Amino acid sequence: MSHKPTTALVQYLEDKANEIRILSIECTNASKSGHPTSCMSAAEIFSVLFFNEMRYDNDYPKHPSSDRFILSKGHAAPGLYSAWCAAGLFDKEKLLTLRKIDSDLEGHPTPRLNFIDAATGSLGQGLSVAAGMAYIGKHIEHASYRTYCLIGDGESAEGSIWEALSFASHYKLDNLVAIFDINRLGQSEAAPLEHDMDVYRKRVEAFGFHTMVVDGHSVEEILKALEEAKSVKNKPCALICKTYKGHGSSDVADKLDFHGKALNSLSDKILAEIKGKMHGAEEQPRPKINDDAPQIVDKPVAFKSALEYEQGKMIATRVAYGDALVKLGEASDKVVVLDADTKNSTYALKFKNAFPDRYIECFIAEQNMVGVSLGCGARNRTIPFCSTFATFFTRAMDQIRMAAVSQSQLNMVGSHCGVSIGEDGPSQMALEDIAAFRAIPNLVYFYPSDAVSACRAVELAANYKHMTFIRTSRPATPVIYANDETFEIGKAKIVKESAEDKVLVIGAGITLDSAMKAHSSLQGKGTNIRVMDPFTIKPLDKEAVLKHAKECGGRVITVEDHYPEGGIGEAVAAVLSDADFITKHKMLAVREIPRSGPPAVLLDMFGISANKVEDAVMDLIE
Amino acid sequence: MSHKPTTALVQYLEDKANEIRILSIECTNASKSGHPTSCMSAAEIFSVLFFNEMRYDNDYPKHPSSDRFILSKGHAAPGLYSAWCAAGLFDKEKLLTLRKIDSDLEGHPTPRLNFIDAATGSLGQGLSVAAGMAYIGKHIEHASYRTYCLIGDGESAEGSIWEALSFASHYKLDNLVAIFDINRLGQSEAAPLEHDMDVYRKRVEAFGFHTMVVDGHSVEEILKALEEAKSVKNKPCALICKTYKGHGSSDVADKLDFHGKALNSLSDKILAEIKGKMHGAEEQPRPKINDDAPQIVDKPVAFKSALEYEQGKMIATRVAYGDALVKLGEASDKVVVLDADTKNSTYALKFKNAFPDRYIECFIAEQNMVGVSLGCGARNRTIPFCSTFATFFTRAMDQIRMAAVSQSQLNMVGSHCGVSIGEDGPSQMALEDIAAFRAIPNLVYFYPSDAVSACRAVELAANYKHMTFIRTSRPATPVIYANDETFEIGKAKIVKESAEDKVLVIGAGITLDSAMKAHSSLQGKGTNIRVMDPFTIKPLDKEAVLKHAKECGGRVITVEDHYPEGGIGEAVAAVLSDADFITKHKMLAVREIPRSGPPAVLLDMFGISANKVEDAVMDLIE
Repeated sequence: MSHKPTTALVQYLEDKANEIRILSIECTNASKSGHPTSCMSAAEIFSVLFFNEMRYDNDYPKHPSSDRFILSKGHAAPGLYSAWCAAGLFDKEKLLTLRKIDSDLEGHPTPRLNFIDAATGSLGQGLSVAAGMAYIGKHIEHASYRTYCLIGDGESAEGSIWEALSFASHYKLDNLVAIFDINRLGQSEAAPLEHDMDVYRKRVEAFGFHTMVVDGHSVEEILKALEEAKSVKNKPCALICKTYKGHGSSDVADKLDFHGKALNSLSDKILAEIKGKMHGAEEQPRPKINDDAPQIVDKPVAFKSALEYEQGKMIATRVAYGDALVKLGEASDKVVVLDADTKNSTYALKFKNAFPDRYIECFIAEQNMVGVSLGCGARNRTIPFCSTFATFFTRAMDQIRMAAVSQSQLNMVGSHCGVSIGEDGPSQMALEDIAAFRAIPNLVYFYPSDAVSACRAVELAANYKHMTFIRTSRPATPVIYANDETFEIGKAKIVKESAEDKVLVIGAGITLDSAMKAHSSLQGKGTNIRVMDPFTIKPLDKEAVLKHAKECGGRVITVEDHYPEGGIGEAVAAVLSDADFITKHKMLAVREIPRSGPPAVLLDMFGISANKVEDAVMDLIE
Repeated sequence: MSHKPTTALVQYLEDKANEIRILSIECTNASKSGHPTSCMSAAEIFSVLFFNEMRYDNDYPKHPSSDRFILSKGHAAPGLYSAWCAAGLFDKEKLLTLRKIDSDLEGHPTPRLNFIDAATGSLGQGLSVAAGMAYIGKHIEHASYRTYCLIGDGESAEGSIWEALSFASHYKLDNLVAIFDINRLGQSEAAPLEHDMDVYRKRVEAFGFHTMVVDGHSVEEILKALEEAKSVKNKPCALICKTYKGHGSSDVADKLDFHGKALNSLSDKILAEIKGKMHGAEEQPRPKINDDAPQIVDKPVAFKSALEYEQGKMIATRVAYGDALVKLGEASDKVVVLDADTKNSTYALKFKNAFPDRYIECFIAEQNMVGVSLGCGARNRTIPFCSTFATFFTRAMDQIRMAAVSQSQLNMVGSHCGVSIGEDGPSQMALEDIAAFRAIPNLVYFYPSDAVSACRAVELAANYKHMTFIRTSRPATPVIYANDETFEIGKAKIVKESAEDKVLVIGAGITLDSAMKAHSSLQGKGTNIRVMDPFTIKPLDKEAVLKHAKECGGRVITVEDHYPEGGIGEAVAAVLSDADFITKHKMLAVREIPRSGPPAVLLDMFGISANKVEDAVMDLIE
């Protein structure tokens, strides 16, 4: 392919491009909705990728060594489905089920389809995922598969694209090709740079990519650029493709009013125009997979050695997270760890020191870190853990939401939760994270209260097949559990209990400590309370909550270093509101925007200290 | 200043820089925490800005015509406080209260201080806010104040910085100066580009800024660049300042281990070294404010004309949002509207068509849109409404969280909530937004169920002094209320009621429609239910929930187009779990990741249709 392509190849690829156009129009006609014009601009790109460039196996779409393709502009799903249909993965009858209730060919791609590695459709996210896959291919697996990502011009306004470009060039991902489909038009008006190809080139080049501006409707130019890309070493490559939305139809090309609309009534004429351009070219050979990526065996991961904490000793759960990562790294080569320039605070640094080759520094770009993590975990290649301050994970809320749609195994560890961080003040305090992340489907939300349970949360997370979030705390708290204590997802622990308990108090992290201190003080005054460590806030141990609430006369106090909405209190309330006995439930939580100050003072000022628990107990039993 | 600055001026500014260094070290010594070295790199920048460039009034820090300054690298707060202290806004005694519990000089800046317009400390957010302020100054107020933003190199990895740069150059904000403090070192290692000034220059230049690389420790170079910036028309300017973290002390400068640490034990030597460089220069004059920005009068905003909807007619709440914006625009010149290339879906387009000069297109960059909105509303200059699909606001969760700390008036309107959007599939469906945004302090979460209440939500939002989120729906639903119905924040409406009601059903938006249909069907079968429209999910009308739950025998069904966690169901549960009667509470919500399909089919498949409400009612009363 270093020579000029043959006419036969060019005509074949032009035919395939037009076949993809036709199929895109036909399937969106069948669904009466979708984005045919956004597929038509990318038809030549799809054609060259699927019929000349990419190595894949229709019988095994997730082959470990096949090239990867991420459709960042997820609304061009009909084009992607049409390409796979034209490539023979499934028949046209199936293609025409697009967007139907019983079809996995959804409006935007999801991994319900065996050829999709990551759900897209929220814009600007695909390149991070692709960069994660490319990082693993180059730096972990040393395999020859390549990763391609198709990006729209509208979504190039998303900052996450630029985070991903930075990351990819920093790590010299020469196995990654970013293809920009610059079709000029957004949803409601022209994209800001329209067809200013030179500005796109300058920007992407400045971000460290080998950048080629090409006519995106010329299969020859695309062929040439992809060939050139293969010769570039230690730099990722970008094709900036000048295209026209709706290209192929003189009626709709480059016109604004056709975003996200099936072409139904216009399509007879449009299809005739496109069919008129077909060469009837002969099929051309496609490249074969180079089978050099390792096979991954899926097996349980267990620490190889016992924990060695001393009960009563003061250890922050964030420190235990670092310890657990090292044990996990010893137990499995699959574990990789990412952090966003906070590794000396989250203690991910311990893993980096032990296994530098499996640590990926993502710098201060949390959206990209989550996307890269998703890419690392895709196709089950690795078990990723990523960490930063819990509140900075809210930066990646949309990526996290989409990761659930992607059915990702993605483990996030957020440190520095709540007012207990102290003097740094509210910008650094996670107080909304339980609410935000507990709403993510299938996500397990761990909130360990001591070093032992923090380690076990990490071990359980490594074996859980969906997403997890582990909330760690800044201050040191006493080790509560014996090193051989066993933990399960969805199983609470009762840490203080007697036959005379008057109130059930549920806390976690620093507020379990508040509850334990209140227990001691109250016991001295002749009042017994029961103290529960929920361990996972989602799933919550509903049976235990009901049982112990009932045994404590229906009196329940929840206490949390979090705002009241969507946190532990409401999770518990959702159980109690359907109990068959009357419950009195007091929710202690941070009820206004906090401020800088010493942790102990803040806990008291914002109503979640041991004193405040004690007051609430006395109020309840009066 | 077009000539070389006088020696007197240079020495004065060098002295002020060193004074800022000294004060930064002293106040962080007093607090025993904080980031002195991150202030020391920016000392000359602070000095030139505060003692030569910026126009401000110590007696009126929020003067409408004063220049604006946003410290995007919020952890350099001690430097900013020291600059204001040196400028005479407050005395050194106050400065030394840094990070104390009773001091508003917090670890990171918040508007508890009268000289702060936006809280910072979550990195990468300041430039969007500054761009919003500059947009208002140039395009709305046509005033001569200028806006300056100080950005760290570590935070330049955040994509939101690049979104803001794009926005600023697109709108030719020549009254904006972005100053990058390239001090080479991040928190846990060197920033990715270290001192590669050329790459920074190329990137920022490619993003459309007039870009000047300067020695950030030379007051002469900074003076020259800021002067040059004033001569640039129709382009924003950037200073890329090469600096050293900890500059001024030969012991800590350019060393990694001093991030976020007070210098206590080292500081005698360091202070002596810095003091040794002082010239004892004479005070130099500062520029005066050019008082040409309008005075803003704060007064209630009310629609000037009646609503004209017909009860029973089918109108989507997103369409009513567009109608309401136009009425609001007629009522007040202060209203500005922003959208992220979805204006033809959210119906913000109606406002653009009516008031094109007050519409700001933000393209597909939601983080920046929220930051710009915050900047538009800062100092009460405008009343901003911004819109996109509700789920894409999760992209800006961190900005929204920080906007609460900023005490912003910021109105967000999220359309296309839940499975009722249909065929576009889960990537476009907001199902976590109630959980995420309800947790934001002081935020009012409106969830209108018809056109009339949607309009009133918009009118109430315009008059509310903190943040609001209005959730609008894609499908058309019947107009329920008369045009003169009055609504209040925190007041629910009972839309179906009888003396024989067996169950209280609470729904909103499309699920209020489900509840109303279930009511009709059940009534035909002889069973009465009470139907509540909560109007605001936060604050929730707790008294109404308790009263009507009790009147319905404690039987409550909540039904919502949202995941179960943190939504309407849990908000209601938080009330019921503390009721003094037994409640049976069934939460109908979307309990798995949904898919593409027709809205009515999805509502039924995911358990929130009228049929499912009816089934739940029958189960409860059996």
